[in-house]
Amino acid sequence: MNNIENIAKSAKEASINALKLSTELKNIALYTIAHNLQLNKDKILEVNKLDLINASSLLEKGEITQAVFNRLKLDDNKLRDMIQGIKDVAALIDPVNKILWSKEIADGITLKKVSCPIGVIGVIFEARPDVITQITALSIKSSNAVILKGGIEAVETNKTLFDIIKTSLREVNGFPDNMVNLIYTRDDVKEMLNLDEYINLIIPRGSNSLVKYIKSNTKIPVLGHSDGICHIYTDEYADIEKALNIIIDSKCQYPAACNSVETVLIHKNISDKIMNKLINALNENNVKIILDKSFNIDGYQSADENDWKTEYGDKILSIKLVNSIDEAIDHINKYGSGHTDCIISENKENAEKFMMFVDSAGVYQNISTRFADGFRYGFGAEVGISTNKTHARGPVGLEGLTIYKYKLYGSGDIVEDFISEKRKFNK
Amino acid sequence: MNNIENIAKSAKEASINALKLSTELKNIALYTIAHNLQLNKDKILEVNKLDLINASSLLEKGEITQAVFNRLKLDDNKLRDMIQGIKDVAALIDPVNKILWSKEIADGITLKKVSCPIGVIGVIFEARPDVITQITALSIKSSNAVILKGGIEAVETNKTLFDIIKTSLREVNGFPDNMVNLIYTRDDVKEMLNLDEYINLIIPRGSNSLVKYIKSNTKIPVLGHSDGICHIYTDEYADIEKALNIIIDSKCQYPAACNSVETVLIHKNISDKIMNKLINALNENNVKIILDKSFNIDGYQSADENDWKTEYGDKILSIKLVNSIDEAIDHINKYGSGHTDCIISENKENAEKFMMFVDSAGVYQNISTRFADGFRYGFGAEVGISTNKTHARGPVGLEGLTIYKYKLYGSGDIVEDFISEKRKFNK
Repeated sequence: MNNIENIAKSAKEASINALKLSTELKNIALYTIAHNLQLNKDKILEVNKLDLINASSLLEKGEITQAVFNRLKLDDNKLRDMIQGIKDVAALIDPVNKILWSKEIADGITLKKVSCPIGVIGVIFEARPDVITQITALSIKSSNAVILKGGIEAVETNKTLFDIIKTSLREVNGFPDNMVNLIYTRDDVKEMLNLDEYINLIIPRGSNSLVKYIKSNTKIPVLGHSDGICHIYTDEYADIEKALNIIIDSKCQYPAACNSVETVLIHKNISDKIMNKLINALNENNVKIILDKSFNIDGYQSADENDWKTEYGDKILSIKLVNSIDEAIDHINKYGSGHTDCIISENKENAEKFMMFVDSAGVYQNISTRFADGFRYGFGAEVGISTNKTHARGPVGLEGLTIYKYKLYGSGDIVEDFISEKRKFNK
Repeated sequence: MNNIENIAKSAKEASINALKLSTELKNIALYTIAHNLQLNKDKILEVNKLDLINASSLLEKGEITQAVFNRLKLDDNKLRDMIQGIKDVAALIDPVNKILWSKEIADGITLKKVSCPIGVIGVIFEARPDVITQITALSIKSSNAVILKGGIEAVETNKTLFDIIKTSLREVNGFPDNMVNLIYTRDDVKEMLNLDEYINLIIPRGSNSLVKYIKSNTKIPVLGHSDGICHIYTDEYADIEKALNIIIDSKCQYPAACNSVETVLIHKNISDKIMNKLINALNENNVKIILDKSFNIDGYQSADENDWKTEYGDKILSIKLVNSIDEAIDHINKYGSGHTDCIISENKENAEKFMMFVDSAGVYQNISTRFADGFRYGFGAEVGISTNKTHARGPVGLEGLTIYKYKLYGSGDIVEDFISEKRKFNK
């Protein structure tokens, strides 16, 4: 048995021991981690500098982007947020051992549906070291064991954060060993993806190519989204001021986010009224415009089919003319990624139609796509965003790390008595 | 684009059109199918005879078992149950378009979590033709499109049932085409498993080898169980009469079922009191006993490790001696399949310990494992039983064919106003 299999097996054992964890003990564990991160602040920032030195040369050689470099860098503010984030998770309601549903299915036979942890979760993320503390906190609160694989650029920072977490958990009496684990290389990940015997869920957080690679290489269920191709459809009954504000916010507020808009669809009956204003607003905000030829507006790059499939992740926006709301819906269901799509319309019927037929995790009326976020939805924490059609969809909170079991209480009951109609189930 | 891809693509389109289906129209569709099955009763039984003639020769050659032959055979009673089953599904509460949760996340911004269909579901089953009408009914009621692959032995019966379903759905004004589809060969299945672009969930219903094959050959989420290795642990505080009744019911009431017991664990402190009685009861019921050597009882086949991993699916039972409840829990978590496991004990603490630490879909106290069934749980219908740790676990009702989307209603709201703290989210 190799190293990664050993880690996964130990994590599985830990996950069974974790079933007995009280909310109180889990919160003590979280506060201990937060406390020790605070105590080791200077050390963490020192070690992060080592990673940054290496990353600088990668940046110079063009092997990583400025965005990756920025996400890698920790400072006092980020550390403060990381520590506060752990305390915030401690304050959330414990998602496990909740009775979700209960029924006396026959006289003297009680069925209870009870929430419980999933087991062992593998989380693969890229450069951001703050993911370690965030996912650790969410896993502990939901009584799941976790195997973390961080970005290679953050290896020293990750190791240090992980050591602090391990030391903290050992300080907590009765907390199972091996609940939190760190692995390091791509080969480690490759091995992990084969361990469906021990690992119950994989959560990739990172680029499209990472997510696609993982989905293609494991039998373990994967929770995530591979693309964030979000749309705003400006209906013929749109309020033009609202449309402009929402489009600019959805594109410019944080263009690299998966919930930023990539394509705007304009109904032909409103095109004359909005296009000049929209182009001006986008130009003012330094957004590159890629334009459907049907607009007959010169001076911009022409859109081709490829643009409808592209997540620019940058200040670039494609704009398409549509003849009807149905064409808009069809376009979104064909080219979208099922993430978040919005209609701008004052017409209630059109809005409801759009929200019914667009097959996406989030369907919005008159509001920026940037609201697609667990914190903004009021979940208090976010595991990630899912475009899955099973288990969890959209922004996923703590609940997404749980499943349930059925507990059935009897007193010697046998099925034969019900087959022979001696006894009857309750309605 | 080949035939199966065309079918999947059309099913996907149908699934989008199905989003508009009212409960009333879906129930009309179900009653129309039930009605037409009734009208075509004689024809169905005639065609079934053709399959039975072919199956007889397969049975003679030993290529299929008597059990498969029996499941293939339709008669008046089975047809009546099939038709009643469809009407029962019509009577269930519509699982889609339910508001599961709603919140005003900020002044004027309302978030609704709304249940919706999963999309396109592929169901692969073996000889039983009654699965066609059952799964069709469940899919229609939950507004999902479905692609069915039945057992080759039932091909003529399946075709006829499918034709009646198709004709029925065409009689219903406004019902989308291609909601229900039938494919025929193993090659068809192989192609279907690659179509993750169109198909959202695969449900295999059949042998272990079928389920394992499917899990190893698709990126599409799979809902099912590969084994049903259920345990009964007879605690030192067991009531012996209850133990005997429950073990006999769990083994003998329907030995081929996935929820029948395969291994009984006996606490050493109760072994002397129960073993003679248990062996007598099993002998009376013609159950073959495979016995742990530690009992020091002669005359029975000795159990080896392989027995702890075997789903006999027959009147065979392995019995193991354990030194403690912890050993019982460890054994079940190591060798079990996470399906259904029971403790026989009058001691509440031990029962709760067992039910907490045994990591199975169903954990029972003093009741037969044969109760693990959607109908017995009161769900009114059963999609199948799942040992998954995500999406749905245990007996799965209509709800298991649904997911949810988030609808967000605003009036021009932008994230920038919240980042700049001009506005605040509600607590």
